[in-house]
Amino acid sequence: MNQTTMRNETRFSDDELQRRRDFDRSRPLDRDESSNLISSSKVESTNVYATDGDKLGSISHLMIGKRSGRVEYAVMNFGSFLGIGGSYHPLPWDTLDFDNNRGGYVVNIDKDRLRDAPSFKEDRQPTYDRQYGETVYGYYGLNY
Amino acid sequence: MNQTTMRNETRFSDDELQRRRDFDRSRPLDRDESSNLISSSKVESTNVYATDGDKLGSISHLMIGKRSGRVEYAVMNFGSFLGIGGSYHPLPWDTLDFDNNRGGYVVNIDKDRLRDAPSFKEDRQPTYDRQYGETVYGYYGLNY
Repeated sequence: MNQTTMRNETRFSDDELQRRRDFDRSRPLDRDESSNLISSSKVESTNVYATDGDKLGSISHLMIGKRSGRVEYAVMNFGSFLGIGGSYHPLPWDTLDFDNNRGGYVVNIDKDRLRDAPSFKEDRQPTYDRQYGETVYGYYGLNY
Repeated sequence: MNQTTMRNETRFSDDELQRRRDFDRSRPLDRDESSNLISSSKVESTNVYATDGDKLGSISHLMIGKRSGRVEYAVMNFGSFLGIGGSYHPLPWDTLDFDNNRGGYVVNIDKDRLRDAPSFKEDRQPTYDRQYGETVYGYYGLNY
């Protein structure tokens, strides 16, 4: 997940960098988002959009490796958007890019393709094992 | 974080392993906890105990690396337990061990030492940068 844009790779002088650091320090800290970390409480309930701008759902919860501490999935509540109400799509963390303009995550997938993506009903949580991981990550073109 | 015990390293026959898998499949899945992953919604609000059994607080939220997807801290709400009401202790993920008997996390630290551990008031969230990480992780004897 990348919440900063990497487009601007201009190199700055030391003076300019110091000026920017001072500016950053002068701004009030967002309680939920500081430096390179983000709070789970902010991720949860954040909207998710398709690249074409349609709202797809919102993040319900995160699935975390007990030992690794890695967020393996951000589970999106799909709502009834596609008429398949109350379903959940586990999205690999790396599929989520934060869009400051929309104030939500953008997943680089269109609705038709999302319709066929791995999902489950609320009362049918999958077994999050390696096989499931390979299936889900593979669907989004990522290695598990 | 280790929610399974590794004490029993007995090796089982294929038949026994199959029997156990079938048994596992026959049990209703815990909605929030499946295989080696745990839901953020389960971690949040889970109690935290000291090794001597005293309740220290409960997990308020997790701080997650935006790019890495790693949970760097489980932030414990300390409540007013030590008379310093409303403070937060960022605990490195690896300090948390789940204790099935207590139904909560146990941190291998005593209350006196926790009293001096890095903490902050609700409206004074720290800047979660490398220096802070080294301080907090170092306090708990971990590498950041």
